Amino acid sequence: MPRYSFTVEYDGRPYCGWQRQANGPSVQAALERAIKAFSGEEVTIGGAGRTDAGVHATGQVAHVDLEKAWPAATVLRAINFHIQPDPVVLLDCAEMHEGFDSRFSAIRRSYRYRIFNRSARLTFERGLAWHVKAELDADAMNDAAQEFVGHHDFTTFRHAKCQAKSPEKTLETFSVRREGLFVIAECSSRSFLHNQVRSMVGTLKLVGEGKWTAQDVRAALAARDRKACGPVAPADGLYLTGVDYRSKDKDIAKAKAKKLEESQR
Amino acid sequence: MPRYSFTVEYDGRPYCGWQRQANGPSVQAALERAIKAFSGEEVTIGGAGRTDAGVHATGQVAHVDLEKAWPAATVLRAINFHIQPDPVVLLDCAEMHEGFDSRFSAIRRSYRYRIFNRSARLTFERGLAWHVKAELDADAMNDAAQEFVGHHDFTTFRHAKCQAKSPEKTLETFSVRREGLFVIAECSSRSFLHNQVRSMVGTLKLVGEGKWTAQDVRAALAARDRKACGPVAPADGLYLTGVDYRSKDKDIAKAKAKKLEESQR
Repeated sequence: MPRYSFTVEYDGRPYCGWQRQANGPSVQAALERAIKAFSGEEVTIGGAGRTDAGVHATGQVAHVDLEKAWPAATVLRAINFHIQPDPVVLLDCAEMHEGFDSRFSAIRRSYRYRIFNRSARLTFERGLAWHVKAELDADAMNDAAQEFVGHHDFTTFRHAKCQAKSPEKTLETFSVRREGLFVIAECSSRSFLHNQVRSMVGTLKLVGEGKWTAQDVRAALAARDRKACGPVAPADGLYLTGVDYRSKDKDIAKAKAKKLEESQR
Repeated sequence: MPRYSFTVEYDGRPYCGWQRQANGPSVQAALERAIKAFSGEEVTIGGAGRTDAGVHATGQVAHVDLEKAWPAATVLRAINFHIQPDPVVLLDCAEMHEGFDSRFSAIRRSYRYRIFNRSARLTFERGLAWHVKAELDADAMNDAAQEFVGHHDFTTFRHAKCQAKSPEKTLETFSVRREGLFVIAECSSRSFLHNQVRSMVGTLKLVGEGKWTAQDVRAALAARDRKACGPVAPADGLYLTGVDYRSKDKDIAKAKAKKLEESQR
Protein backbone atom coordinates (compact mmCIF):
# COMPACT_ATOMS: atom_id res chain seq x y z
CA MET A 1 0.00 0.00 0.00
CA PRO A 2 1.87 3.12 -1.17
CA ARG A 3 2.14 6.09 1.14
CA TYR A 4 2.12 9.59 -0.32
CA SER A 5 3.09 12.82 1.38
CA PHE A 6 2.31 16.31 0.15
CA THR A 7 2.88 19.95 0.98
CA VAL A 8 -0.42 21.78 1.34
CA GLU A 9 -1.25 25.49 1.14
CA TYR A 10 -4.64 26.71 2.37
CA ASP A 11 -6.56 29.82 3.23
CA GLY A 12 -7.95 28.98 6.68
CA ARG A 13 -10.80 31.48 6.61
CA PRO A 14 -13.63 29.09 5.63
CA TYR A 15 -12.48 26.24 7.90
CA CYS A 16 -13.00 25.23 11.51
CA GLY A 17 -9.38 24.08 11.36
CA TRP A 18 -7.19 21.36 9.87
CA GLN A 19 -8.86 18.50 11.69
CA ARG A 20 -12.13 16.85 10.62
CA GLN A 21 -14.96 17.96 12.89
CA ALA A 22 -18.69 17.32 13.11
CA ASN A 23 -19.61 21.00 13.32
CA GLY A 24 -18.05 22.50 10.22
CA PRO A 25 -15.81 22.23 7.17
CA SER A 26 -12.16 21.27 7.72
CA VAL A 27 -9.12 21.14 5.47
CA GLN A 28 -8.65 17.45 6.25
CA ALA A 29 -12.22 16.60 5.16
CA ALA A 30 -11.84 18.66 1.97
CA LEU A 31 -8.70 16.68 1.05
CA GLU A 32 -10.30 13.34 1.92
CA ARG A 33 -13.31 14.21 -0.28
CA ALA A 34 -11.00 15.08 -3.18
CA ILE A 35 -9.12 11.78 -2.81
CA LYS A 36 -12.38 9.84 -2.78
CA ALA A 37 -13.51 11.68 -5.92
CA PHE A 38 -10.51 10.48 -7.91
CA SER A 39 -9.68 7.09 -6.35
CA GLY A 40 -13.00 6.02 -4.86
CA GLU A 41 -11.20 5.28 -1.60
CA GLU A 42 -12.35 6.36 1.87
CA VAL A 43 -9.10 7.52 3.44
CA THR A 44 -7.87 9.22 6.58
CA ILE A 45 -5.21 11.85 6.03
CA GLY A 46 -2.59 12.66 8.64
CA GLY A 47 -1.22 16.18 9.02
CA ALA A 48 1.91 17.57 10.67
CA GLY A 49 0.18 20.51 12.34
CA ARG A 50 -3.40 20.60 13.62
CA THR A 51 -4.03 24.25 12.81
CA ASP A 52 -6.98 25.94 14.55
CA ALA A 53 -10.03 27.59 12.99
CA GLY A 54 -9.00 30.46 10.73
CA VAL A 55 -5.27 29.60 10.79
CA HIS A 56 -3.58 29.37 7.39
CA ALA A 57 -0.81 27.26 5.90
CA THR A 58 1.71 27.75 3.13
CA GLY A 59 3.67 24.61 4.03
CA GLN A 60 1.48 22.11 5.92
CA VAL A 61 2.63 18.51 5.30
CA ALA A 62 0.17 15.61 5.14
CA HIS A 63 0.31 11.93 4.24
CA VAL A 64 -2.11 9.24 3.09
CA ASP A 65 -2.09 5.56 2.12
CA LEU A 66 -3.79 4.59 -1.13
CA GLU A 67 -4.77 1.05 -2.22
CA LYS A 68 -3.57 1.57 -5.76
CA ALA A 69 -0.11 2.77 -6.73
CA TRP A 70 -0.43 5.92 -8.81
CA PRO A 71 2.47 8.06 -10.01
CA ALA A 72 2.91 10.90 -7.49
CA ALA A 73 2.38 13.46 -10.26
CA THR A 74 -1.04 11.90 -10.98
CA VAL A 75 -2.05 12.09 -7.30
CA LEU A 76 -0.97 15.74 -7.24
CA ARG A 77 -2.98 16.69 -10.33
CA ALA A 78 -6.05 14.66 -9.34
CA ILE A 79 -6.37 16.09 -5.82
CA ASN A 80 -5.77 19.63 -7.10
CA PHE A 81 -8.50 19.12 -9.69
CA HIS A 82 -11.11 17.56 -7.41
CA ILE A 83 -10.58 19.88 -4.45
CA GLN A 84 -11.86 22.87 -6.40
CA PRO A 85 -13.32 25.33 -5.51
CA ASP A 86 -11.88 25.00 -1.99
CA PRO A 87 -8.95 27.40 -1.29
CA VAL A 88 -6.62 24.43 -0.75
CA VAL A 89 -3.82 23.37 -3.10
CA LEU A 90 -1.09 20.72 -3.05
CA LEU A 91 2.29 22.24 -3.90
CA ASP A 92 4.04 18.87 -4.33
CA CYS A 93 3.53 15.16 -3.83
CA ALA A 94 6.03 12.33 -3.23
CA GLU A 95 5.81 8.60 -2.57
CA MET A 96 7.25 7.87 0.89
CA HIS A 97 8.39 4.76 2.77
CA GLU A 98 5.73 3.23 5.04
CA GLY A 99 7.55 4.34 8.19
CA PHE A 100 7.04 7.99 7.29
CA ASP A 101 4.41 9.87 9.29
CA SER A 102 3.85 13.55 8.54
CA ARG A 103 3.16 14.24 12.23
CA PHE A 104 5.48 11.91 14.14
CA SER A 105 8.46 12.01 11.76
CA ALA A 106 8.53 15.82 11.82
CA ILE A 107 11.62 17.32 13.43
CA ARG A 108 10.73 21.02 13.04
CA ARG A 109 7.63 23.16 12.49
CA SER A 110 7.87 26.78 11.36
CA TYR A 111 5.21 29.43 11.79
CA ARG A 112 4.86 32.99 10.54
CA TYR A 113 2.64 35.60 12.16
CA ARG A 114 1.63 38.67 10.13
CA ILE A 115 0.56 41.91 11.82
CA PHE A 116 -0.79 44.72 9.60
CA ASN A 117 0.18 47.80 11.52
CA ARG A 118 -1.69 50.96 10.51
CA SER A 119 -4.59 53.02 11.77
CA ALA A 120 -6.93 52.42 8.79
CA ARG A 121 -9.01 49.24 8.76
CA LEU A 122 -8.03 46.28 6.56
CA THR A 123 -9.33 45.73 3.03
CA PHE A 124 -7.31 43.05 1.15
CA GLU A 125 -5.86 41.57 4.36
CA ARG A 126 -9.10 40.82 6.23
CA GLY A 127 -8.73 37.47 7.96
CA LEU A 128 -5.16 37.23 6.66
CA ALA A 129 -3.39 39.45 9.20
CA TRP A 130 -3.89 40.90 12.68
CA HIS A 131 -4.85 44.55 12.50
CA VAL A 132 -2.92 46.53 15.13
CA LYS A 133 -3.45 50.30 15.04
CA ALA A 134 -0.78 51.57 17.43
CA GLU A 135 2.68 51.79 15.84
CA LEU A 136 4.74 48.82 16.99
CA ASP A 137 8.46 48.83 17.76
CA ALA A 138 9.50 45.67 15.88
CA ASP A 139 13.10 45.85 17.18
CA ALA A 140 11.89 45.85 20.79
CA MET A 141 9.60 42.91 19.96
CA ASN A 142 12.53 41.05 18.39
CA ASP A 143 14.70 41.63 21.46
CA ALA A 144 11.94 40.39 23.78
CA ALA A 145 11.25 37.39 21.51
CA GLN A 146 14.73 36.07 22.36
CA GLU A 147 13.44 35.41 25.91
CA PHE A 148 11.39 32.56 24.42
CA VAL A 149 14.31 30.92 22.58
CA GLY A 150 15.68 27.76 24.21
CA HIS A 151 14.22 25.12 26.50
CA HIS A 152 11.45 26.45 28.76
CA ASP A 153 8.29 25.49 30.60
CA PHE A 154 5.70 27.29 28.43
CA THR A 155 2.73 26.85 30.81
CA THR A 156 2.02 30.61 30.60
CA PHE A 157 1.82 30.40 26.81
CA ARG A 158 -0.40 27.35 26.25
CA HIS A 159 -4.17 27.06 25.88
CA ALA A 160 -5.97 26.10 29.10
CA LYS A 161 -7.22 22.98 27.26
CA CYS A 162 -3.85 22.06 25.71
CA GLN A 163 -3.56 18.26 25.79
CA ALA A 164 0.24 17.94 25.58
CA LYS A 165 1.66 15.84 28.42
CA SER A 166 4.50 18.26 29.14
CA PRO A 167 4.51 22.08 28.96
CA GLU A 168 8.24 22.00 28.17
CA LYS A 169 9.35 22.83 24.66
CA THR A 170 12.55 23.98 23.00
CA LEU A 171 12.05 27.03 20.81
CA GLU A 172 14.78 27.04 18.17
CA THR A 173 14.35 30.49 16.60
CA PHE A 174 12.10 33.53 17.02
CA SER A 175 12.56 36.70 14.96
CA VAL A 176 10.41 39.80 14.55
CA ARG A 177 10.99 42.36 11.81
CA ARG A 178 9.20 45.23 10.12
CA GLU A 179 8.36 45.02 6.39
CA GLY A 180 6.68 48.30 5.47
CA LEU A 181 3.29 48.35 7.21
CA PHE A 182 3.69 44.71 8.26
CA VAL A 183 5.36 43.35 11.36
CA ILE A 184 6.39 39.75 10.67
CA ALA A 185 7.17 37.25 13.44
CA GLU A 186 8.71 33.89 12.59
CA CYS A 187 9.49 31.02 14.93
CA SER A 188 10.43 27.36 14.75
CA SER A 189 10.44 24.42 17.15
CA ARG A 190 10.24 20.63 16.99
CA SER A 191 6.64 21.06 18.14
CA PHE A 192 4.42 23.68 19.72
CA LEU A 193 1.82 23.68 22.48
CA HIS A 194 -1.80 24.56 21.67
CA ASN A 195 -2.05 28.33 21.05
CA GLN A 196 1.64 28.80 21.89
CA VAL A 197 2.54 31.00 18.91
CA ARG A 198 -0.57 33.17 19.26
CA SER A 199 0.04 33.52 23.02
CA MET A 200 3.68 34.55 22.49
CA VAL A 201 2.80 37.01 19.68
CA GLY A 202 -0.02 38.57 21.73
CA THR A 203 2.45 39.12 24.54
CA LEU A 204 5.12 40.56 22.21
CA LYS A 205 2.54 43.03 20.90
CA LEU A 206 2.48 44.55 24.42
CA VAL A 207 6.24 45.03 24.08
CA GLY A 208 5.79 46.60 20.62
CA GLU A 209 3.32 49.07 22.11
CA GLY A 210 5.75 49.97 24.89
CA LYS A 211 3.48 48.55 27.62
CA TRP A 212 5.78 45.65 28.48
CA THR A 213 9.56 45.20 28.52
CA ALA A 214 11.63 42.11 27.72
CA GLN A 215 11.94 41.68 31.50
CA ASP A 216 8.14 41.49 31.79
CA VAL A 217 8.17 38.73 29.15
CA ARG A 218 10.85 36.86 31.07
CA ALA A 219 8.81 37.19 34.28
CA ALA A 220 5.64 35.94 32.53
CA LEU A 221 7.52 32.89 31.26
CA ALA A 222 8.97 32.23 34.73
CA ALA A 223 5.51 32.54 36.32
CA ARG A 224 4.33 29.29 34.61
CA ASP A 225 0.82 30.63 34.98
CA ARG A 226 -1.68 31.06 32.14
CA LYS A 227 -2.94 34.27 33.78
CA ALA A 228 0.48 35.91 33.24
CA CYS A 229 0.05 35.71 29.44
CA GLY A 230 -0.82 38.79 27.36
CA PRO A 231 -3.99 38.74 25.21
CA VAL A 232 -3.82 35.88 22.68
CA ALA A 233 -3.32 37.08 19.08
CA PRO A 234 -6.16 36.18 16.69
CA ALA A 235 -5.98 33.22 14.29
CA ASP A 236 -6.09 35.56 11.26
CA GLY A 237 -2.37 36.32 11.14
CA LEU A 238 -1.01 32.81 11.74
CA TYR A 239 0.54 30.65 8.98
CA LEU A 240 2.13 27.21 9.23
CA THR A 241 4.95 27.83 6.75
CA GLY A 242 6.93 24.61 6.80
CA VAL A 243 7.66 21.24 8.36
CA ASP A 244 11.10 19.63 8.30
CA TYR A 245 12.01 15.94 8.34
CA ARG A 246 15.22 13.96 8.69
CA SER A 247 17.21 13.85 5.47
CA LYS A 248 16.84 10.03 5.65
CA ASP A 249 13.10 10.47 4.94
CA LYS A 250 13.83 12.69 1.98
CA ASP A 251 16.49 10.31 0.62
CA ILE A 252 14.09 7.36 0.68
CA ALA A 253 11.47 9.44 -1.12
CA LYS A 254 14.05 10.44 -3.76
CA ALA A 255 15.12 6.81 -4.27
CA LYS A 256 11.46 5.81 -4.68
CA ALA A 257 10.89 8.58 -7.23
CA LYS A 258 13.96 7.45 -9.19
CA LYS A 259 12.82 3.82 -9.17
CA LEU A 260 9.37 4.90 -10.41
CA GLU A 261 10.91 7.02 -13.15
CA GLU A 262 13.08 4.13 -14.31
CA SER A 263 10.17 1.68 -14.30
CA GLN A 264 8.29 4.02 -16.66
CA ARG A 265 11.04 4.26 -19.27
CA MET B 1 -19.33 74.84 0.58
CA PRO B 2 -16.15 73.06 1.65
CA ARG B 3 -14.57 70.57 -0.72
CA TYR B 4 -12.82 67.51 0.71
CA SER B 5 -10.48 65.16 -1.07
CA PHE B 6 -9.42 61.73 0.15
CA THR B 7 -7.19 58.82 -0.75
CA VAL B 8 -9.20 55.61 -1.00
CA GLU B 9 -8.12 51.97 -0.80
CA TYR B 10 -10.54 49.25 -1.90
CA ASP B 11 -10.76 45.59 -2.71
CA GLY B 12 -12.52 45.62 -6.09
CA ARG B 13 -13.82 42.04 -5.93
CA PRO B 14 -17.39 42.77 -4.80
CA TYR B 15 -17.86 45.79 -7.06
CA CYS B 16 -18.98 46.40 -10.63
CA GLY B 17 -16.36 49.15 -10.63
CA TRP B 18 -15.70 52.59 -9.20
CA GLN B 19 -18.64 54.28 -10.93
CA ARG B 20 -22.24 54.16 -9.69
CA GLN B 21 -24.28 51.77 -11.87
CA ALA B 22 -27.84 50.51 -11.92
CA ASN B 23 -26.87 46.84 -12.13
CA GLY B 24 -24.64 46.31 -9.11
CA PRO B 25 -22.68 47.69 -6.16
CA SER B 26 -20.00 50.29 -6.84
CA VAL B 27 -17.31 51.92 -4.72
CA GLN B 28 -18.72 55.36 -5.49
CA ALA B 29 -22.21 54.40 -4.24
CA ALA B 30 -20.73 52.81 -1.08
CA LEU B 31 -18.89 56.06 -0.28
CA GLU B 32 -21.95 58.21 -1.05
CA ARG B 33 -24.06 56.02 1.28
CA ALA B 34 -21.50 56.40 4.06
CA ILE B 35 -21.48 60.19 3.65
CA LYS B 36 -25.27 60.32 3.78
CA ALA B 37 -25.22 58.20 6.96
CA PHE B 38 -23.08 60.73 8.82
CA SER B 39 -24.06 64.07 7.27
CA GLY B 40 -27.56 63.39 5.95
CA GLU B 41 -26.48 64.87 2.60
CA GLU B 42 -27.14 63.32 -0.81
CA VAL B 43 -23.80 63.88 -2.55
CA THR B 44 -22.04 62.94 -5.76
CA ILE B 45 -18.41 61.93 -5.36
CA GLY B 46 -15.86 62.47 -8.09
CA GLY B 47 -12.96 60.05 -8.57
CA ALA B 48 -9.62 60.33 -10.38
CA GLY B 49 -9.79 56.90 -12.01
CA ARG B 50 -12.93 55.07 -13.12
CA THR B 51 -11.67 51.58 -12.33
CA ASP B 52 -13.51 48.66 -13.97
CA ALA B 53 -15.31 45.76 -12.28
CA GLY B 54 -12.90 43.76 -10.10
CA VAL B 55 -10.08 46.33 -10.33
CA HIS B 56 -8.56 47.37 -6.99
CA ALA B 57 -7.10 50.58 -5.59
CA THR B 58 -4.54 51.40 -2.96
CA GLY B 59 -4.38 55.08 -3.92
CA GLN B 60 -7.58 56.22 -5.65
CA VAL B 61 -8.30 59.92 -5.05
CA ALA B 62 -11.84 61.27 -4.75
CA HIS B 63 -13.48 64.55 -3.81
CA VAL B 64 -16.84 65.74 -2.53
CA ASP B 65 -18.57 68.99 -1.52
CA LEU B 66 -20.37 69.05 1.80
CA GLU B 67 -22.90 71.68 2.99
CA LYS B 68 -21.47 71.85 6.48
CA ALA B 69 -17.80 72.50 7.28
CA TRP B 70 -16.45 69.59 9.34
CA PRO B 71 -12.82 69.14 10.38
CA ALA B 72 -11.17 66.84 7.80
CA ALA B 73 -10.28 64.36 10.59
CA THR B 74 -13.99 64.09 11.47
CA VAL B 75 -14.94 63.42 7.84
CA LEU B 76 -12.22 60.71 7.67
CA ARG B 77 -13.40 58.95 10.83
CA ALA B 78 -17.10 59.25 10.02
CA ILE B 79 -16.83 57.80 6.49
CA ASN B 80 -14.55 54.99 7.70
CA PHE B 81 -17.06 54.15 10.41
CA HIS B 82 -20.20 54.23 8.26
CA ILE B 83 -18.75 52.42 5.23
CA GLN B 84 -18.33 49.20 7.25
CA PRO B 85 -18.46 46.35 6.39
CA ASP B 86 -17.51 47.29 2.80
CA PRO B 87 -13.82 46.61 1.95
CA VAL B 88 -13.24 50.32 1.33
CA VAL B 89 -11.22 52.63 3.54
CA LEU B 90 -10.12 56.27 3.42
CA LEU B 91 -6.40 56.60 4.11
CA ASP B 92 -6.47 60.38 4.50
CA CYS B 93 -8.73 63.39 4.07
CA ALA B 94 -7.94 67.05 3.40
CA GLU B 95 -9.98 70.17 2.79
CA MET B 96 -9.23 71.48 -0.71
CA HIS B 97 -9.83 74.73 -2.59
CA GLU B 98 -12.98 74.78 -4.72
CA GLY B 99 -11.00 74.66 -7.98
CA PHE B 100 -9.64 71.22 -7.09
CA ASP B 101 -11.14 68.29 -9.00
CA SER B 102 -9.78 64.79 -8.29
CA ARG B 103 -10.22 63.84 -11.94
CA PHE B 104 -9.42 66.96 -13.92
CA SER B 105 -6.66 68.35 -11.67
CA ALA B 106 -4.73 65.06 -11.78
CA ILE B 107 -1.38 65.24 -13.56
CA ARG B 108 -0.36 61.57 -13.19
CA ARG B 109 -2.00 58.20 -12.52
CA SER B 110 0.01 55.15 -11.43
CA TYR B 111 -1.04 51.53 -11.78
CA ARG B 112 0.43 48.27 -10.55
CA TYR B 113 -0.32 44.89 -12.12
CA ARG B 114 0.38 41.74 -10.09
CA ILE B 115 0.94 38.36 -11.78
CA PHE B 116 1.21 35.28 -9.53
CA ASN B 117 3.49 33.01 -11.51
CA ARG B 118 3.41 29.36 -10.43
CA SER B 119 1.78 26.15 -11.60
CA ALA B 120 -0.42 25.58 -8.51
CA ARG B 121 -3.76 27.36 -8.34
CA LEU B 122 -4.25 30.44 -6.17
CA THR B 123 -5.49 30.35 -2.58
CA PHE B 124 -4.95 33.67 -0.77
CA GLU B 125 -4.52 35.63 -4.01
CA ARG B 126 -7.80 34.70 -5.72
CA GLY B 127 -9.17 37.79 -7.42
CA LEU B 128 -6.11 39.75 -6.28
CA ALA B 129 -3.60 38.64 -8.94
CA TRP B 130 -3.48 37.11 -12.42
CA HIS B 131 -2.54 33.44 -12.22
CA VAL B 132 -0.01 32.61 -14.97
CA LYS B 133 1.35 29.05 -14.90
CA ALA B 134 4.20 29.21 -17.42
CA GLU B 135 7.38 30.72 -15.97
CA LEU B 136 7.71 34.29 -17.18
CA ASP B 137 10.92 36.08 -18.12
CA ALA B 138 10.39 39.35 -16.23
CA ASP B 139 13.56 40.92 -17.70
CA ALA B 140 12.36 40.31 -21.26
CA MET B 141 8.98 41.79 -20.28
CA ASN B 142 10.69 44.84 -18.81
CA ASP B 143 12.74 45.35 -21.99
CA ALA B 144 9.64 45.07 -24.17
CA ALA B 145 7.67 47.39 -21.84
CA GLN B 146 10.04 50.23 -22.83
CA GLU B 147 8.44 50.15 -26.31
CA PHE B 148 5.33 51.66 -24.71
CA VAL B 149 7.15 54.53 -22.99
CA GLY B 150 6.77 57.93 -24.63
CA HIS B 151 4.11 59.52 -26.83
CA HIS B 152 2.23 57.00 -28.98
CA ASP B 153 -1.07 56.27 -30.68
CA PHE B 154 -2.37 53.46 -28.41
CA THR B 155 -5.28 52.40 -30.65
CA THR B 156 -4.07 48.77 -30.45
CA PHE B 157 -4.19 48.88 -26.66
CA ARG B 158 -7.57 50.50 -25.98
CA HIS B 159 -10.99 48.93 -25.44
CA ALA B 160 -13.16 48.88 -28.58
CA LYS B 161 -15.69 51.04 -26.66
CA CYS B 162 -13.13 53.47 -25.24
CA GLN B 163 -14.71 56.93 -25.28
CA ALA B 164 -11.54 59.05 -25.22
CA LYS B 165 -11.43 61.56 -28.08
CA SER B 166 -7.83 60.78 -28.96
CA PRO B 167 -5.95 57.44 -28.83
CA GLU B 168 -2.70 59.34 -28.20
CA LYS B 169 -1.18 59.18 -24.75
CA THR B 170 2.24 59.75 -23.23
CA LEU B 171 3.38 56.86 -21.06
CA GLU B 172 5.90 58.21 -18.54
CA THR B 173 7.24 54.99 -16.99
CA PHE B 174 6.75 51.25 -17.36
CA SER B 175 8.76 48.72 -15.34
CA VAL B 176 8.42 44.96 -14.90
CA ARG B 177 10.28 43.03 -12.20
CA ARG B 178 10.18 39.67 -10.47
CA GLU B 179 9.52 39.49 -6.70
CA GLY B 180 9.66 35.81 -5.76
CA LEU B 181 6.64 34.11 -7.35
CA PHE B 182 5.19 37.48 -8.36
CA VAL B 183 5.85 39.44 -11.53
CA ILE B 184 5.03 43.09 -10.84
CA ALA B 185 4.39 45.62 -13.60
CA GLU B 186 4.13 49.33 -12.78
CA CYS B 187 3.32 52.19 -15.12
CA SER B 188 2.38 55.84 -14.95
CA SER B 189 0.87 58.39 -17.31
CA ARG B 190 -1.12 61.61 -17.10
CA SER B 191 -4.11 59.49 -18.09
CA PHE B 192 -4.85 56.11 -19.62
CA LEU B 193 -7.26 54.81 -22.27
CA HIS B 194 -9.97 52.32 -21.31
CA ASN B 195 -8.33 48.89 -20.72
CA GLN B 196 -4.91 50.26 -21.72
CA VAL B 197 -2.93 48.80 -18.80
CA ARG B 198 -4.61 45.39 -19.05
CA SER B 199 -4.07 45.34 -22.82
CA MET B 200 -0.38 46.20 -22.48
CA VAL B 201 0.18 43.66 -19.66
CA GLY B 202 -1.63 40.90 -21.59
CA THR B 203 0.68 41.59 -24.52
CA LEU B 204 3.81 41.65 -22.33
CA LYS B 205 2.82 38.25 -20.93
CA LEU B 206 3.33 36.85 -24.47
CA VAL B 207 6.86 38.25 -24.30
CA GLY B 208 7.41 36.72 -20.85
CA GLU B 209 6.37 33.33 -22.25
CA GLY B 210 8.81 33.70 -25.14
CA LYS B 211 6.03 33.80 -27.75
CA TRP B 212 6.59 37.44 -28.68
CA THR B 213 9.66 39.68 -28.87
CA ALA B 214 10.02 43.38 -28.12
CA GLN B 215 9.92 43.86 -31.90
CA ASP B 216 6.48 42.20 -32.01
CA VAL B 217 5.29 44.65 -29.36
CA ARG B 218 6.66 47.57 -31.39
CA ALA B 219 4.88 46.26 -34.50
CA ALA B 220 1.59 45.82 -32.59
CA LEU B 221 1.81 49.44 -31.38
CA ALA B 222 2.61 50.67 -34.90
CA ALA B 223 -0.33 48.71 -36.35
CA ARG B 224 -2.86 51.00 -34.55
CA ASP B 225 -5.31 48.13 -34.79
CA ARG B 226 -7.15 46.58 -31.84
CA LYS B 227 -6.77 43.14 -33.48
CA ALA B 228 -2.96 43.35 -33.11
CA CYS B 229 -3.27 43.36 -29.28
CA GLY B 230 -2.47 40.28 -27.19
CA PRO B 231 -5.16 38.80 -24.90
CA VAL B 232 -6.30 41.40 -22.35
CA ALA B 233 -5.12 40.63 -18.80
CA PRO B 234 -7.93 40.07 -16.25
CA ALA B 235 -9.11 42.77 -13.84
CA ASP B 236 -7.94 40.71 -10.83
CA GLY B 237 -4.30 41.85 -10.90
CA LEU B 238 -4.84 45.59 -11.50
CA TYR B 239 -4.41 48.23 -8.77
CA LEU B 240 -4.70 52.02 -9.06
CA THR B 241 -1.81 52.87 -6.73
CA GLY B 242 -1.65 56.63 -6.83
CA VAL B 243 -2.72 59.93 -8.37
CA ASP B 244 -0.50 62.99 -8.43
CA TYR B 245 -1.48 66.65 -8.46
CA ARG B 246 0.35 69.93 -8.92
CA SER B 247 2.19 71.05 -5.80
CA LYS B 248 0.01 74.20 -5.93
CA ASP B 249 -3.03 72.03 -5.05
CA LYS B 250 -1.17 70.47 -2.14
CA ASP B 251 0.07 73.86 -0.90
CA ILE B 252 -3.45 75.28 -0.80
CA ALA B 253 -4.64 72.18 1.09
CA LYS B 254 -1.79 72.59 3.58
CA ALA B 255 -2.59 76.28 4.10
CA LYS B 256 -6.26 75.37 4.69
CA ALA B 257 -5.30 72.70 7.20
CA LYS B 258 -3.06 75.19 9.03
CA LYS B 259 -5.81 77.79 9.12
CA LEU B 260 -8.26 75.19 10.49
CA GLU B 261 -5.75 74.11 13.12
CA GLU B 262 -5.18 77.70 14.22
CA SER B 263 -8.90 78.44 14.40
CA GLN B 264 -9.28 75.48 16.76
CA ARG B 265 -6.61 76.61 19.24
